Amino acid sequence: MILGGYMSEKYVDIYKKLDMDIEKHSELMSALFQLFSDVFLTQKNRPENIKYFDWLMSEIHGKRIEELMEFKDKNKPLVGTFCIFIPEEIVVASGGACYGLCGGAQFSIPDAERDLPRNICPLIKSAYGFKVQRTCPYTQISNFIYGETTCEAKKKTWEILNDLHPTHVMHIPHMKGKREKDLWREEIYEFKNHIEEIVGKELTFEELKKGVEIINKKREALQRLDYLRSTKPDIVPISGLDSLLVTQISFYDDPERFSDKVFELCDELEERIDKGISVCESDTPRIMVIGTPMAPPNWKLHQVVETTGGIVINEEACIGHRYFKDNIDLDGVESVEDIIERMLERYMKIDCACFTPNDERIDKIIKMYREKKADGIIYYTLSFCHTYNVESKKVIDRLKEEKIPVLKIESDYSAEDVGQIKTRVEAFLESIRFKKSFKAKR
Amino acid sequence: MILGGYMSEKYVDIYKKLDMDIEKHSELMSALFQLFSDVFLTQKNRPENIKYFDWLMSEIHGKRIEELMEFKDKNKPLVGTFCIFIPEEIVVASGGACYGLCGGAQFSIPDAERDLPRNICPLIKSAYGFKVQRTCPYTQISNFIYGETTCEAKKKTWEILNDLHPTHVMHIPHMKGKREKDLWREEIYEFKNHIEEIVGKELTFEELKKGVEIINKKREALQRLDYLRSTKPDIVPISGLDSLLVTQISFYDDPERFSDKVFELCDELEERIDKGISVCESDTPRIMVIGTPMAPPNWKLHQVVETTGGIVINEEACIGHRYFKDNIDLDGVESVEDIIERMLERYMKIDCACFTPNDERIDKIIKMYREKKADGIIYYTLSFCHTYNVESKKVIDRLKEEKIPVLKIESDYSAEDVGQIKTRVEAFLESIRFKKSFKAKR
Ligand code: SF4
Ligand code: SF4
Ligand code: SF4
Ligand code: SF4
Repeated sequence: MILGGYMSEKYVDIYKKLDMDIEKHSELMSALFQLFSDVFLTQKNRPENIKYFDWLMSEIHGKRIEELMEFKDKNKPLVGTFCIFIPEEIVVASGGACYGLCGGAQFSIPDAERDLPRNICPLIKSAYGFKVQRTCPYTQISNFIYGETTCEAKKKTWEILNDLHPTHVMHIPHMKGKREKDLWREEIYEFKNHIEEIVGKELTFEELKKGVEIINKKREALQRLDYLRSTKPDIVPISGLDSLLVTQISFYDDPERFSDKVFELCDELEERIDKGISVCESDTPRIMVIGTPMAPPNWKLHQVVETTGGIVINEEACIGHRYFKDNIDLDGVESVEDIIERMLERYMKIDCACFTPNDERIDKIIKMYREKKADGIIYYTLSFCHTYNVESKKVIDRLKEEKIPVLKIESDYSAEDVGQIKTRVEAFLESIRFKKSFKAKR
Repeated sequence: MILGGYMSEKYVDIYKKLDMDIEKHSELMSALFQLFSDVFLTQKNRPENIKYFDWLMSEIHGKRIEELMEFKDKNKPLVGTFCIFIPEEIVVASGGACYGLCGGAQFSIPDAERDLPRNICPLIKSAYGFKVQRTCPYTQISNFIYGETTCEAKKKTWEILNDLHPTHVMHIPHMKGKREKDLWREEIYEFKNHIEEIVGKELTFEELKKGVEIINKKREALQRLDYLRSTKPDIVPISGLDSLLVTQISFYDDPERFSDKVFELCDELEERIDKGISVCESDTPRIMVIGTPMAPPNWKLHQVVETTGGIVINEEACIGHRYFKDNIDLDGVESVEDIIERMLERYMKIDCACFTPNDERIDKIIKMYREKKADGIIYYTLSFCHTYNVESKKVIDRLKEEKIPVLKIESDYSAEDVGQIKTRVEAFLESIRFKKSFKAKR
């Protein structure tokens, strides 16, 4: 078990300032670190440079919160979000920090279920439960939470959450025509206003440009990692679990430090590829995971796949490829308005299932599958996520037409279905292995 | 059992033209009419003029479809919808017919669940299943289905439905600011264009005004019925079941004929009130039902309440008060644009849970409760309807603050939970009766 930074007096002082439930928080953290040790530190042949991310995870409620307290003291905006639609570039431009609050823990769900229906997505319940429990320092420290209207359960939960913590809501349209873009442009300006209110001044062109550059670099780093983990058909230099960890941390860490560390990791992965160092046998079934986001500590599916003889080479999800696939083009921008316009263009490329229609997502998945030489796809959806769940019909129909092996898993954060998922994944990997050996023989 | 108009050769010919599954349809109809007989015709002391609505129900797939075939032959638009946001006035203005396709039957759900997740709202599954089965003549006859983006499961189902039947989607915004109104205005114009494409000409001011007048009159008729059933604290001249039937039929019938028949019924109800004729004892607990819509033949909750000693005096739902509460103000309109603007204003008053925030709904419910001298409220929500389900927290908290007795029921279309619902409703009515007698004694 790693020694997480959350026990020292220095941190406990901060938790007190943030009005946290210290006892409950300790309980949460010790369970979290136990799980982290069991899932991550037992892996073999990890790259050296993953250590930074292990450390950051161990300091997720320690050092990183201490850093954010410094932002707070300097009156820099601290904004918690639940969706990759919220333009973090603007927060970074203001000198503040923007982080994801999506919850991946069963721990807080019972406390959420006193206010929320049981049959909504666990991600929302988990996050809301953290606020009820006062066990999440990121929530506690934020000036405000910025929710959005992408899905119903979230949209309606913000109304209740607002009674516990200041919550704004961004109206995300569900189509992509001109009128929707016009609406969403105004929402970006409104978000910018909210941030500017905190710092007490308008953001300059230079500041905004700098903010975009920082986040562009973060996305480039993640794109490179995504490329390296799947570029060789027979060498996978980093596990799916470790890659997922890096992506999860991208939602919490300081973006500039993070990018540097990812680039260092990538350098090592390149070396590994050159030397032929792989975390798995060359005939291991290569799995693409597509669907709903996996917020920490939701490592369930990756753990099952990778302890059952498969390897995850990509996540087509918001904590994954959808988050970093597109950069904001700064070429030739001359004004704040230019930057916002480019931002609008970039964000409108997000192919979330909340849009209708969303066929571009299907085309993209098939393209990625071929490029990454994947052997099969797991369509992962959190229980009661209507959008990704209904969309799976169209996606899976197309995958079957293309003769791509696909398995659909619907799950929540409880441990109850692990056995059943394992059985299904095992059978799926077996069928892929059979096909691979057949192909290899011919 | 009533003899429904669906067996005669004349109608079977129509079904064939509409490419329906005749056998499956017969099965559906005989189950429907059996249920209708059991639920409705066993009621005592029904008003004389309910006979028209019994007849219309018996001819729902008979005479009424024959009428719609005449529209079809004359190339008049026939539009099926799933939400009270679609401006039927425009279809009526064009000489066409607009009707609700929301499904209330378990019968078609297994066929839907081959394509759709089990854990989405039964209303959508039922309606989609009818299309898969080809057992709904309203679906079959429609030029197109006009869906909307109010809720996720519907929004994403339209994409799949579109493969089986031409389906357009109206983008309904989820907030009510200026930018949302601007967006939705354009959606109305687009809807109008789609209708005009069928008739091959632009709608005139006079036609549009006439369309609005016809639907305004329908709403006035329903408002009068709503008023009469609940105006006297000790006389209820019509059962909740019969009132619900009338509202359900308002989504299918010819609007002008329907309005006349409702007015006739209301005249009789006024007489009944004068004469002191009530369908229940004067101390019967008066229940307001609030929440998600009840599409025919979903009569489950009303039947439970009214066979357990209660009476339903109002439905605060889309098949209910939300549908008819507001008229379009035609005062001083001079152009097509004027009418569309008034339409926009009227529709933006719909207090669907898809909006955030939606506090106006809560204020309205409390006002209605007092005006109608109700004794308790049942918050009814279809399973997996996230919006109404999450919103129930805020609504119920406020009702409790106001000391209004409230019971929440979440249910689907299966018969499995009837016993359990009955037990809970019984206990609820008992507690109300206890309070009433206590008050009466003091
Ligand atoms: S899946 Fe959709 S709603 Fe969820 S974070 Fe991604 S873009 Fe936002
Ligand atoms: S996973 Fe689905 S239901 Fe859950 S928050 Fe994201 S979009 Fe909403
Ligand atoms: S409840 Fe909302 S989505 Fe359903 S019919 Fe009513 S307005 Fe439309
Ligand atoms: S009841 Fe709820 S989930 Fe069902 S169609 Fe209406 S808004 Fe959607």
